[in-house]
Amino acid sequence: MALRTPEEYVESLRRLNPVVYIAGERIDNYVDHPLIRPGINVVAQTYAAALDPRYEDLCTAVSHISGEKINRLLHVYQSREDCIRSLRMLRVLNQLVGTCCIRCVTKETINPLYELTYQIDLKRGTNYHARFKKYLSYIQSEDLFCAAGVTDVKGDRARSPSRQADPDLYVRVVKKNSDGIVVRGAKMHMTGVLASHYINVMPTTTMREEDADYAVAFAVPVNAPGLTFVLGRHSMDERRLDGSDLGNLHYDMHEALVIFEDVFIPWERVFMCGEFEFTGLAIELFTAMHRFSYGGCRPGVMDVLIGATRLISEINGVSRASHIRDKLTEMVHLSETIWACGLAAALEGHVLPSGVYCPNRMLANVAKLNVGRFPYEIARLAHEVTGGIIATMPSEKDLLNHEIGPKVEKYLRGVEHVPTWVRMRLVRLIENITLGVTLPADLFGGGGPQTQKIVIEAETNWEHKKRMACEVAGITKLNGSGTP
Amino acid sequence: MALRTPEEYVESLRRLNPVVYIAGERIDNYVDHPLIRPGINVVAQTYAAALDPRYEDLCTAVSHISGEKINRLLHVYQSREDCIRSLRMLRVLNQLVGTCCIRCVTKETINPLYELTYQIDLKRGTNYHARFKKYLSYIQSEDLFCAAGVTDVKGDRARSPSRQADPDLYVRVVKKNSDGIVVRGAKMHMTGVLASHYINVMPTTTMREEDADYAVAFAVPVNAPGLTFVLGRHSMDERRLDGSDLGNLHYDMHEALVIFEDVFIPWERVFMCGEFEFTGLAIELFTAMHRFSYGGCRPGVMDVLIGATRLISEINGVSRASHIRDKLTEMVHLSETIWACGLAAALEGHVLPSGVYCPNRMLANVAKLNVGRFPYEIARLAHEVTGGIIATMPSEKDLLNHEIGPKVEKYLRGVEHVPTWVRMRLVRLIENITLGVTLPADLFGGGGPQTQKIVIEAETNWEHKKRMACEVAGITKLNGSGTP
Amino acid sequence: MALRTPEEYVESLRRLNPVVYIAGERIDNYVDHPLIRPGINVVAQTYAAALDPRYEDLCTAVSHISGEKINRLLHVYQSREDCIRSLRMLRVLNQLVGTCCIRCVTKETINPLYELTYQIDLKRGTNYHARFKKYLSYIQSEDLFCAAGVTDVKGDRARSPSRQADPDLYVRVVKKNSDGIVVRGAKMHMTGVLASHYINVMPTTTMREEDADYAVAFAVPVNAPGLTFVLGRHSMDERRLDGSDLGNLHYDMHEALVIFEDVFIPWERVFMCGEFEFTGLAIELFTAMHRFSYGGCRPGVMDVLIGATRLISEINGVSRASHIRDKLTEMVHLSETIWACGLAAALEGHVLPSGVYCPNRMLANVAKLNVGRFPYEIARLAHEVTGGIIATMPSEKDLLNHEIGPKVEKYLRGVEHVPTWVRMRLVRLIENITLGVTLPADLFGGGGPQTQKIVIEAETNWEHKKRMACEVAGITKLNGSGTP
Amino acid sequence: MALRTPEEYVESLRRLNPVVYIAGERIDNYVDHPLIRPGINVVAQTYAAALDPRYEDLCTAVSHISGEKINRLLHVYQSREDCIRSLRMLRVLNQLVGTCCIRCVTKETINPLYELTYQIDLKRGTNYHARFKKYLSYIQSEDLFCAAGVTDVKGDRARSPSRQADPDLYVRVVKKNSDGIVVRGAKMHMTGVLASHYINVMPTTTMREEDADYAVAFAVPVNAPGLTFVLGRHSMDERRLDGSDLGNLHYDMHEALVIFEDVFIPWERVFMCGEFEFTGLAIELFTAMHRFSYGGCRPGVMDVLIGATRLISEINGVSRASHIRDKLTEMVHLSETIWACGLAAALEGHVLPSGVYCPNRMLANVAKLNVGRFPYEIARLAHEVTGGIIATMPSEKDLLNHEIGPKVEKYLRGVEHVPTWVRMRLVRLIENITLGVTLPADLFGGGGPQTQKIVIEAETNWEHKKRMACEVAGITKLNGSGTP
Repeated sequence: MALRTPEEYVESLRRLNPVVYIAGERIDNYVDHPLIRPGINVVAQTYAAALDPRYEDLCTAVSHISGEKINRLLHVYQSREDCIRSLRMLRVLNQLVGTCCIRCVTKETINPLYELTYQIDLKRGTNYHARFKKYLSYIQSEDLFCAAGVTDVKGDRARSPSRQADPDLYVRVVKKNSDGIVVRGAKMHMTGVLASHYINVMPTTTMREEDADYAVAFAVPVNAPGLTFVLGRHSMDERRLDGSDLGNLHYDMHEALVIFEDVFIPWERVFMCGEFEFTGLAIELFTAMHRFSYGGCRPGVMDVLIGATRLISEINGVSRASHIRDKLTEMVHLSETIWACGLAAALEGHVLPSGVYCPNRMLANVAKLNVGRFPYEIARLAHEVTGGIIATMPSEKDLLNHEIGPKVEKYLRGVEHVPTWVRMRLVRLIENITLGVTLPADLFGGGGPQTQKIVIEAETNWEHKKRMACEVAGITKLNGSGTP
Repeated sequence: MALRTPEEYVESLRRLNPVVYIAGERIDNYVDHPLIRPGINVVAQTYAAALDPRYEDLCTAVSHISGEKINRLLHVYQSREDCIRSLRMLRVLNQLVGTCCIRCVTKETINPLYELTYQIDLKRGTNYHARFKKYLSYIQSEDLFCAAGVTDVKGDRARSPSRQADPDLYVRVVKKNSDGIVVRGAKMHMTGVLASHYINVMPTTTMREEDADYAVAFAVPVNAPGLTFVLGRHSMDERRLDGSDLGNLHYDMHEALVIFEDVFIPWERVFMCGEFEFTGLAIELFTAMHRFSYGGCRPGVMDVLIGATRLISEINGVSRASHIRDKLTEMVHLSETIWACGLAAALEGHVLPSGVYCPNRMLANVAKLNVGRFPYEIARLAHEVTGGIIATMPSEKDLLNHEIGPKVEKYLRGVEHVPTWVRMRLVRLIENITLGVTLPADLFGGGGPQTQKIVIEAETNWEHKKRMACEVAGITKLNGSGTP
Repeated sequence: MALRTPEEYVESLRRLNPVVYIAGERIDNYVDHPLIRPGINVVAQTYAAALDPRYEDLCTAVSHISGEKINRLLHVYQSREDCIRSLRMLRVLNQLVGTCCIRCVTKETINPLYELTYQIDLKRGTNYHARFKKYLSYIQSEDLFCAAGVTDVKGDRARSPSRQADPDLYVRVVKKNSDGIVVRGAKMHMTGVLASHYINVMPTTTMREEDADYAVAFAVPVNAPGLTFVLGRHSMDERRLDGSDLGNLHYDMHEALVIFEDVFIPWERVFMCGEFEFTGLAIELFTAMHRFSYGGCRPGVMDVLIGATRLISEINGVSRASHIRDKLTEMVHLSETIWACGLAAALEGHVLPSGVYCPNRMLANVAKLNVGRFPYEIARLAHEVTGGIIATMPSEKDLLNHEIGPKVEKYLRGVEHVPTWVRMRLVRLIENITLGVTLPADLFGGGGPQTQKIVIEAETNWEHKKRMACEVAGITKLNGSGTP
Repeated sequence: MALRTPEEYVESLRRLNPVVYIAGERIDNYVDHPLIRPGINVVAQTYAAALDPRYEDLCTAVSHISGEKINRLLHVYQSREDCIRSLRMLRVLNQLVGTCCIRCVTKETINPLYELTYQIDLKRGTNYHARFKKYLSYIQSEDLFCAAGVTDVKGDRARSPSRQADPDLYVRVVKKNSDGIVVRGAKMHMTGVLASHYINVMPTTTMREEDADYAVAFAVPVNAPGLTFVLGRHSMDERRLDGSDLGNLHYDMHEALVIFEDVFIPWERVFMCGEFEFTGLAIELFTAMHRFSYGGCRPGVMDVLIGATRLISEINGVSRASHIRDKLTEMVHLSETIWACGLAAALEGHVLPSGVYCPNRMLANVAKLNVGRFPYEIARLAHEVTGGIIATMPSEKDLLNHEIGPKVEKYLRGVEHVPTWVRMRLVRLIENITLGVTLPADLFGGGGPQTQKIVIEAETNWEHKKRMACEVAGITKLNGSGTP
């Protein structure tokens, strides 16, 4: 059976034993660690939703390999409809968890790798594609979560991988033999990796021949020898340690720095090794697939934020004020603009040679560029509606204290009929989404804005536009002199 | 045969003889008047495109009534695919003319009227729908262009139609008999009406019982007795009179104030008469249909503007400067965001009771709201790339003068190999799009931004969003007191 | 001697013993509490700067009462030059601490109270002004820090103070006798109050006769019986508890909810009591004085943020990239626009009847409105330059651990010659300013944006502008009919 | 007597006989030409204001050379107060004419030339300064208007002056002898030049040794042999020809392309000739002086626009709607932000070696950069308040026609008591300001936005900001390795 229960998923993690550091300490039971468990809870929701009759249709698909029902997050898009449905699934999953749904990266690496391996084989006569399909069959039937290992640490960004002072600042192949390869380096910003079973590694940038050792793609289990995980520290993560003022009670994202110290990868898990001329294609596929998804997931989180903000406006007694309604409507407008870009990218895609359906590259990047802008404005609007309490509110622990609690209850109440703790929790939720890592994650997930601008420029058919302008202006030729 | 040639279309107008005033003068041969002909040229392009093998697939459809091939601008959407294709057609038509394609309003009034008449009949037992279908058959088989008569002159906007100091400030029924009705009032902003055969009139706002006389929809030929047209004056329309510095050589939009002085409408052309409780639905349908279209047409005009701006950057010798490339890419990004909203509105629509497919109301309004914002920013960016010459350039007539011409040729040249007249024409095209009526038309076409905000607020499922927020924040009930 | 040393200041706090709750616990030694001490450090800097020859000229003034040299933060503006110098002082103080300089609120309450008491006396024959001057003499000669108690908790914002379900939701007089008054209620968002000696309390809104009990202004020492302080919880304040990843090593702001449970205020400290018709003036004076200051303090914090962001761009190896330079320059532009608004407000002020110089009310509100906008954009730009590491960086504790430390050192290094810890500290500083309470504090300090809009509308001479338009358009009268 | 009457000023122009082309025709009586006269009317206002007791204080100054009372537009700033007063004068002058006040460029070229000639003399031992003072004495005592000849036509912007395909694309010295120099080339965008007596010519960019022939500054009367003027064509200038729908009844700006065909300049009018190393200083001085002024003049025009928009909102019956009030207030906010930047630039200036007071370079550029942004947004807001009538309104000639006039009067009326012609004129005024050349003039006057960004970047003390950040973050050194 290809669909695990959330409980089975969590148990499956307990059998792994990755090397994890948090704030300078080696962690043993990472599954129950308060800074990691909320991420595991998020991923567990993706298992639960697939079994939930309400979401089953969105959250499962039929594998084109096995014909089995699988989690849609492990599915290779077979059609436009698949792609659109995937976006709808992301919005719903994000609504359920009120944060990044984390597991989307599995589909956003398997889809590009499916095509990438197909194309390398075609030009190079390799057999990566068959290998990859076998791996894909495996993770589909085992219902695994594979994190995405894409962004290298990069060192001095003015230098290419092979020209760094330290050659390890991009993940590279340091040894090859008949069994497999040995890789060294580190990947950053790896979202939710401590809720995953495997990491799908791909190159982070376009490379030239001199960087061939860095042109490597593979899959590796999180407990492979030589892997070390160092958890990133968020703005409000300590609240998880004391369990109060969480905002989002059960769910959170986490990222890790993942260090590869001479990690062995058997050939059956290697999907690119030295074919530097395909790194451009790898990036192109990954960014189209990944950036497109932001058109679905961000509106899901924004739905939660907008709902909380609207409710706070009611509790503050200002929900009928014209400027408050205008701000809430503006939040919706911006969020729906992002959603529209995601839908359009799905609609305007096309089928690639391997048979995978790919969202429209231009529109996927347009979606993502808006995701790097609008949420900051949405956050500002949410703050404005919420009021200064967003920054100055006492702890829920004060409310629960028998001496000071009744005073806090009395003085922080908004409209009479809503209890103070409800107001406080909503403020914390808004704080969680607007002052946590969500904004920078929106900005940088799938690459920063400048990388989207580069694609948009490249995807624009400038010559066509120039011809249309000349046609309308009555310009028949561009050279020579004289008068019209 | 339901498809006329452009020539047949122009000739068909010559047989009409509407009462037209321009700048205080009664006009006889309006078809060849330089301020009207460019609008007729635009509409002629919609006839030409339907016969052009390159665009035939986009620009024609099969009538669901007659089964004949008709111009898609006369088609009632039968499906999502119809709706999407209609949007693609609009982008292409606007690219061809570099301005508003004018004739879209036919489809944007017949689609709402098709549903509206169906619903009134259903609730009121009238027979408007059969009447309307007959009219629709007629205009489809005759391949007519019907302008949209929606926006009343409105007088004091703080007062409803029946409470104006002058009762004629909204179009109203002043008499009814067995043959038909007599209407009085005026409609403004009627785009391209002097290129049309008929006007499809609908109410402009939601009405109450006291306004029942104003709840009226009908079709009327432009040469009906009692109709008078007063042409609006544009910022650069005098150039049409001297024929130079046009920017857009052949095409332009126009609007008129249309005065109805006791115009008789036979019952067979009346589609609503007094059913005030359906005015809200009428607006809702019209705005969804019309605002959605801006997602297709604006990007078409922007394609022309972006092409001209890119070419000017090359002629100025600055196309490789990083900040210039950034600005051009930003123009594309904003334009494609609008396009994405249009596509998404088409994708997310649904079939109405009468069988007409309706684009998504929320997303149609989101598209239009962005159309009221981004073009102003796009214009600013176009100006910045073009340079101060956008405001200070001598006339092409100077270039053509034998004394001063060679000096203008010498001193206004950009890069060596492009003749000065090419540069001048491109500057005029950019001026035409950014300092003409395009920006205010973007802002107000289909209603100003505030009207979109109202729909977006109304279409938002606030309760659902609030529930999602409560779920994530651990709030199970909103009333009472105490602690969680 | 009117100027204390920083050490004397800190010692002076130890003698007070206010009732303080933090996260549900009563705190004894609040002076050394890691969540309060950084705020005390900030205020200590305002004492140090006054004694520092580099800043002495900016940070001290001559009391117009005693003729003694005093801290400028205790000074009543005697002239335009005083006001401008005060703004310069704020920029420098904020640059020194990289956050809110906290103590500015003393001058922003004594200046309005100076004028307010003068005007009440004038109209009501009271003797508040003499009382207030005596109090002012006292705090000047003792070199005290007085916090500002302005914002009430407000409950249901759709209701006025006396119409709340609970009458205590605005601070009010519950008893009066020959010795003084007794007040009850609570004030929120009180910045830096646990670094203060006194609180200067003023009403938060305009009141009508029915709210007369709420029209009260007074000064109260922080250790007055009946006062309780509940500390607000910030997004990153727990880091103060473990002492790592602070971003800003020594300085931070804090706010408290301050509860007044039947606190006795002797008449000599009461500056308004029941004169409800002066509450509008009180707000007007306070907001002009306080909002103006944001024109000086925000650019000071932005200087630190911009410096950190520039340095990170160098460490990332991207400081020469054109788009990075553009973003950094844009940050400067926005920050300097705010600075310009502050300076202009100071320049365009006028002398009030009591002799105090008041900054220009329109421009002070324009400054503040920009402060509620630009910093969000500046934060987005800072994030974009810094990179995704802003959200995902491991703790400095990882760097200091002997096992994982060397690996973090190796992999998080940017350009070769800058040590990793420097990069990490700068990222933490940027995180501190952009994901802490700075943005909402910018938005709400001195009132949210809507309150500034109200003042700007009220300060606009609409009639004058209308007359100018009519003049230019050739309109000589607005009534009647006919033609020009 | 150094102050002429407006009438004397206009008469003085009649004695000149410059070579003027408009739309391909050589013009004889340029003073009364409807496209030029409105610019002359503007400048006449600057003469009238100096004699008007209401404005005399702002609009006149005492010459530091002659001690005579002169027009302030001919004054060299002697102090901060002079500079501030100059800004106030500009706001008032622009309010009076509702457009660019044109003559400001005299003061913005004499101020830089005063300092520039002083510095060249100091380093090169030339005697330009004495010469320039003599010229200055002359124009002050004659009360002349000198236009600014700064922007060359520039050809291919990727090439420097001496590397253009055509060497004449920047104005250059082609001959020198004992009497003077001969110059050839062309200057563009010369505002109001056909209302001027003299042109003050300065170089437009920083030059290197190879461009020494292009490093030239001088003054030349508009009727010098070899000068030809070709008028730029504006979006709505034809309305001046038929005299209706003007918007602004009497005033308008114009620009010309000015061609120098071997024009002789006597040495006494030459102020720089070959000293290429001072071209950077020339630009720096001119841009600081000129960009600063936009902080005064733009708010003056915006005052008129805001007044017209407010009045239209009243006539439309919507002035009490909350969203309308918000938009009008936003227009004020943006305009006052610009004003604040101008005032701050004046306040923060300093005295240069020659004794001239120079506004602050950073803040002058900040002001101008905002002028290139906010007016586009202000225009959008003005359109939104005005309604679609901004684009579609019939001509006033229709209103005046006896047949159609009464119908237009009836149907275009807003609130009952305001005549239609008033509404129409206000709409035309708003159209004039928002769809004419004002926006691009705002963008490009004093150089486009990118040139301001360059100055802002250059004026920023990045090292100081970096040091402040390091101080706060606890970073004592930037090199080496290890831990803190």
